[in-house]
Amino acid sequence: MTAMLARAVVVCLVLLVPSSFLSADEGMWTFNNFPSDAVAKKYGFNPDSKWLEHVRLSSARIAGGCSSSFVSPNGLVMTNHHCAASCIQDISTSQHNYMAQGFYAKSEAEEVKCPNMELNQLLQISDVTQRVNGATRGLSGQQFNDALNKEKASITKDCATSDDYLCEVVTLYSGSRYDLYRYRRFPDVRIVFAPEKAIAFFGGDPDNFNFPRYDLDVTFLRAYDHEHPAKTENYFKWSPEGAKDNMLTFVIGNPGTTDRERTVSELEYMRDYELPDYLIQTSEYRGLLTGFQTRGKEQARISNSLLFGVENSIKARRGEYEALVDKAAFSRHARSELDFRKKVESTPELKNQYGGAWDAIAKATARERILEPRYTDIERGRAFRSRFYSLARMLVRGTQEIPKPNEARFPEYADAKLPQFRSALFTTAPIYPELEIETLTFSLTKMREDLGPDDPLIHDLLGKRSPRELATDLITNTKLSDVAYRKQLLEGGKSAVEAASDSMIQFARRVDNYARQLRAEYERDVEGVQKKNHELLGRARFAVYGNSIYPDATFTPRVSFGSVRGWVENGKKINPLTIIGGAYERNTGSDPFALPQSWLRAKDKLDLTTPFNFVTTNDIIGGNSGSPMINQNGEIIGLIFDGNIWSLGGEFWFDESVNRSVAVHSRALTEALDKVYGARRVLDEIKPAGF
Amino acid sequence: MTAMLARAVVVCLVLLVPSSFLSADEGMWTFNNFPSDAVAKKYGFNPDSKWLEHVRLSSARIAGGCSSSFVSPNGLVMTNHHCAASCIQDISTSQHNYMAQGFYAKSEAEEVKCPNMELNQLLQISDVTQRVNGATRGLSGQQFNDALNKEKASITKDCATSDDYLCEVVTLYSGSRYDLYRYRRFPDVRIVFAPEKAIAFFGGDPDNFNFPRYDLDVTFLRAYDHEHPAKTENYFKWSPEGAKDNMLTFVIGNPGTTDRERTVSELEYMRDYELPDYLIQTSEYRGLLTGFQTRGKEQARISNSLLFGVENSIKARRGEYEALVDKAAFSRHARSELDFRKKVESTPELKNQYGGAWDAIAKATARERILEPRYTDIERGRAFRSRFYSLARMLVRGTQEIPKPNEARFPEYADAKLPQFRSALFTTAPIYPELEIETLTFSLTKMREDLGPDDPLIHDLLGKRSPRELATDLITNTKLSDVAYRKQLLEGGKSAVEAASDSMIQFARRVDNYARQLRAEYERDVEGVQKKNHELLGRARFAVYGNSIYPDATFTPRVSFGSVRGWVENGKKINPLTIIGGAYERNTGSDPFALPQSWLRAKDKLDLTTPFNFVTTNDIIGGNSGSPMINQNGEIIGLIFDGNIWSLGGEFWFDESVNRSVAVHSRALTEALDKVYGARRVLDEIKPAGF
Repeated sequence: MTAMLARAVVVCLVLLVPSSFLSADEGMWTFNNFPSDAVAKKYGFNPDSKWLEHVRLSSARIAGGCSSSFVSPNGLVMTNHHCAASCIQDISTSQHNYMAQGFYAKSEAEEVKCPNMELNQLLQISDVTQRVNGATRGLSGQQFNDALNKEKASITKDCATSDDYLCEVVTLYSGSRYDLYRYRRFPDVRIVFAPEKAIAFFGGDPDNFNFPRYDLDVTFLRAYDHEHPAKTENYFKWSPEGAKDNMLTFVIGNPGTTDRERTVSELEYMRDYELPDYLIQTSEYRGLLTGFQTRGKEQARISNSLLFGVENSIKARRGEYEALVDKAAFSRHARSELDFRKKVESTPELKNQYGGAWDAIAKATARERILEPRYTDIERGRAFRSRFYSLARMLVRGTQEIPKPNEARFPEYADAKLPQFRSALFTTAPIYPELEIETLTFSLTKMREDLGPDDPLIHDLLGKRSPRELATDLITNTKLSDVAYRKQLLEGGKSAVEAASDSMIQFARRVDNYARQLRAEYERDVEGVQKKNHELLGRARFAVYGNSIYPDATFTPRVSFGSVRGWVENGKKINPLTIIGGAYERNTGSDPFALPQSWLRAKDKLDLTTPFNFVTTNDIIGGNSGSPMINQNGEIIGLIFDGNIWSLGGEFWFDESVNRSVAVHSRALTEALDKVYGARRVLDEIKPAGF
Repeated sequence: MTAMLARAVVVCLVLLVPSSFLSADEGMWTFNNFPSDAVAKKYGFNPDSKWLEHVRLSSARIAGGCSSSFVSPNGLVMTNHHCAASCIQDISTSQHNYMAQGFYAKSEAEEVKCPNMELNQLLQISDVTQRVNGATRGLSGQQFNDALNKEKASITKDCATSDDYLCEVVTLYSGSRYDLYRYRRFPDVRIVFAPEKAIAFFGGDPDNFNFPRYDLDVTFLRAYDHEHPAKTENYFKWSPEGAKDNMLTFVIGNPGTTDRERTVSELEYMRDYELPDYLIQTSEYRGLLTGFQTRGKEQARISNSLLFGVENSIKARRGEYEALVDKAAFSRHARSELDFRKKVESTPELKNQYGGAWDAIAKATARERILEPRYTDIERGRAFRSRFYSLARMLVRGTQEIPKPNEARFPEYADAKLPQFRSALFTTAPIYPELEIETLTFSLTKMREDLGPDDPLIHDLLGKRSPRELATDLITNTKLSDVAYRKQLLEGGKSAVEAASDSMIQFARRVDNYARQLRAEYERDVEGVQKKNHELLGRARFAVYGNSIYPDATFTPRVSFGSVRGWVENGKKINPLTIIGGAYERNTGSDPFALPQSWLRAKDKLDLTTPFNFVTTNDIIGGNSGSPMINQNGEIIGLIFDGNIWSLGGEFWFDESVNRSVAVHSRALTEALDKVYGARRVLDEIKPAGF
């Protein structure tokens, strides 16, 4: 399932029609507004605040876009293989391909640091709505946006008292509520165990987002604290039996984004422009990377996780697109909006305060359609698919922004974000020039296509050179692979960057002039207007529907409840659990349906009736990958790694009859660790002796 | 512009609202219903039947999907470079790359036969509506379709008196009229002159469908008749001055398909499903081929024209998609349908006869959505992107169909089609196994994606093998590159094909079982219903709107009228003509904006003020590529090679304010032939001495 898609600007929105969902297993609930009573009513278990605090502290977000959990008192962390894939790829070499072979540290000394991975454990939530509202009152457009960013920077700076902490102001309920989230950072994460990709992602792209499944999509990591395994007093214990049919289940994780409260005009824009454009361009990129893989074994290795991310994202967004062109579902959503709007307009006071919001958003969205391609290409960087470019951009922007007062910077350079910024900038992850030249050539070509060959920006950036000539020059003549050089430039500040003769730095500087203009224009005409008016709609919604609602996903910790349950598809009942034996039946010996040697060898030792994967009604979305699935005792019964194809429509609406989350069963994890991998060290840690 | 897209099933439709267009330059008119009076009224010139006959006989369709014209009494033919690209590529080798270097036959002996090219000159049109209607009266669904095909086969058999003739029953006005077209075949076509691709397609994909342009998109061929240059008494003479601003212009050519009379339900299906699906998958294919090009110089050469076709088609269909998501334009179309429907429903007799057609079509289209992916993959062959597969399929189908009575065959194997069938089957065009393996691997992978890995058909076709393993086996172990082997199998008939141990033949046989079932299902539930009900709508339209209307495009000869005219875009006036000097200004030296050496050398000799490309209001569409542009004297003033970006919406509706055709100016052609190429032999033939 999706490692959360990066979307630079996501307006947070809330559920439109709350009347029905409390009877359904719907909702990605915040920890400070969990509907315990409703769960008790439906399932007979009432999670109290102590329970909620324990499961919150036992979980951790992975900064790149995933979820995870602590599963021992010594910082052992469980997540998905696909969430750790960049790490596994980054520590691999042409000699040691851990994606293909798997990884197992037989001792603490053998645990290897991931070049660019960080965990965040949510310590506290506090309401800062009044402070934020006070700062933005009466403002609109660019002024609104600037004041909001400024106040957020100020709040988070006060909160992040050292590099050990990360603070974020989270925009909830369309901006009608702002909460301050304080996290403990774990920037030193090491890898302990990973199986072969062949079993972690058995079935590959064809089976992705489908069920039945047979995947051991797991990796164990360890959080370190100043060079020692972190002491994690809150962690999940292992359930002896694991998940069973109809069992009550909870998922603790970080759903990335949902768009359940977008207006009809915004969803039409996504359906008719944004998603098709994304799918068409990214599919071409997919084809290019697939072709690159055929250049040779080493090229296949180095482009492996990049291609996975692209394919995963295409499948996810294709599912979203299919949901939006479903006329019946879209019409239901449109009717809900109409109903809400009528309720607002029938009360003069509400109409006066909030009645104009829909049209204002529609107008901003029409403007978005004009600005978006250029903004996405240049400021969001779609035109510059290169890690070297990303590093250069961080240096160019960072040295311009960091000297400014905290409140005057772009929010991603606020003090509270700088520890993460430095980690990302000084990563030791390898960069492969051969691949970089191809990806950058591609994206520059697309930029020329998007903007047209006669655009002044294109003339300025490409000059007389073809995209390939420019990309080759930029990648071949940069020194940014040298971490010391990056440090030197950041320390040297703006003047050092301006004096640098480095090809990529100079290019990023040239881009930055355009990018800043485009961002200002976009924030003024689109983002500022949308935020402001969604805030109005958020308030209107509370006024009309009351408080028992959950906010749209924001890649922050949430709890969802549900139960193990199959579904019916084309009249056929889909059983909620698969067994390990099914993987052997599905094995063809050909990628992506080829079981690894270790599994072929272990077949006789394994209990083939052990549950392997299963589905539940929990409401999750991309970003929930790696989330622990627990029972009411707070014990691990599974590990979320996917959703079924219907879960992709969950971006816009939840349909309990077919929307399912997909997890690895806890018993499959221990059975494989034991009998396939002999990974006693991990097993003893998650299931202490006498278990 | 698009060489016509292959679409296996295209229902022919007519213009909905004829009230306004006679004042606009709208319409792709048949030769037997040309609005000469309307042209006379607007432009002061009334083309008589003699004029129309002469221009019809001076033109020729290129069987693969383009148009062309005779430009000398000795069979010299002018068309676009991109229409002859397959030929140029097929006669090239790794030593002689005529795409890069251009081609010039200094004598008749040096003219090289194109391996797979055929011209068709339209000799006669006769109305066979009554005969066809008599055969289908009272039938529907599969019966309707079968009876229609049977009657067409019978009619064309009577008409095609030898292999020198091709006969087609053309379905016009939604099937409310059937005309028999009799053509003279020219299956021996040789290449005389082609410029370098760098100038033929200067600006490449970025400039494609755009204007201003600077392309010399021309190739001269020669039609041969039993080993001698054909004697063509009807041909176009050259205009001394060529096109000028505001001049009345005619285009004679073969527009492929338009969908101006599709119902709203059909257009919604295209917008929400068919086009996005096509664009997403084909874009991935584009990326793959782009990657293949980087494998090496030879790989770039052999995949060149394939990639061009893919990019051209993506850009064309993207333009169609953009037109359909234009809410205002789509609503106008929907209102027209509603108006038509109301008129039908307000007259009891019309309502009774035709009122149910819209709903019947909507129902068939809903069914199409279910059947289409499988049908397209298996029967239309999207899953089998391989020339070897196409040959195998022709042998498997051909040996099953040809022994049947003419009327009982699939229409593409009717007697009237067999000469073309044999030409295509026995082509000597080279096939490149390295490329075939990649394209077939890709399409088999997509098939698995479309149908799902658990589909019985997938299990049967792939077995335990990956798409790459299967593709490699099929391509490596086929003997179909040997033309003699193909002849032997066709002569040996069904039993020889069934006994063949050839890998690809066996595979095609296995596919064929599924394909026949899928075709029967599709014809019964979708095609038969749509044809039948569009025929009803066609009749209703004549009843409501009268006779002065043109039918949707059918890749048959048509005449369009218009004039040289610029347009206004974003408030900016676009001049209708460019000059040769502009190409030098646009030259960056980097592909696709690199002028070839020949042009750089000739710069001082050229008159840089010579008109190069120009636009007109003529209503054209893909398939018109290579059409002669003539003045009222029937003289060549230009050569159609593209439309502007707005012309792509011409698939659905014509907007004279922005829809423009793009042509090479006749003076640029002679200037370049003379001063860049010194191609006196061609020049003397098209512009006799003393001209």
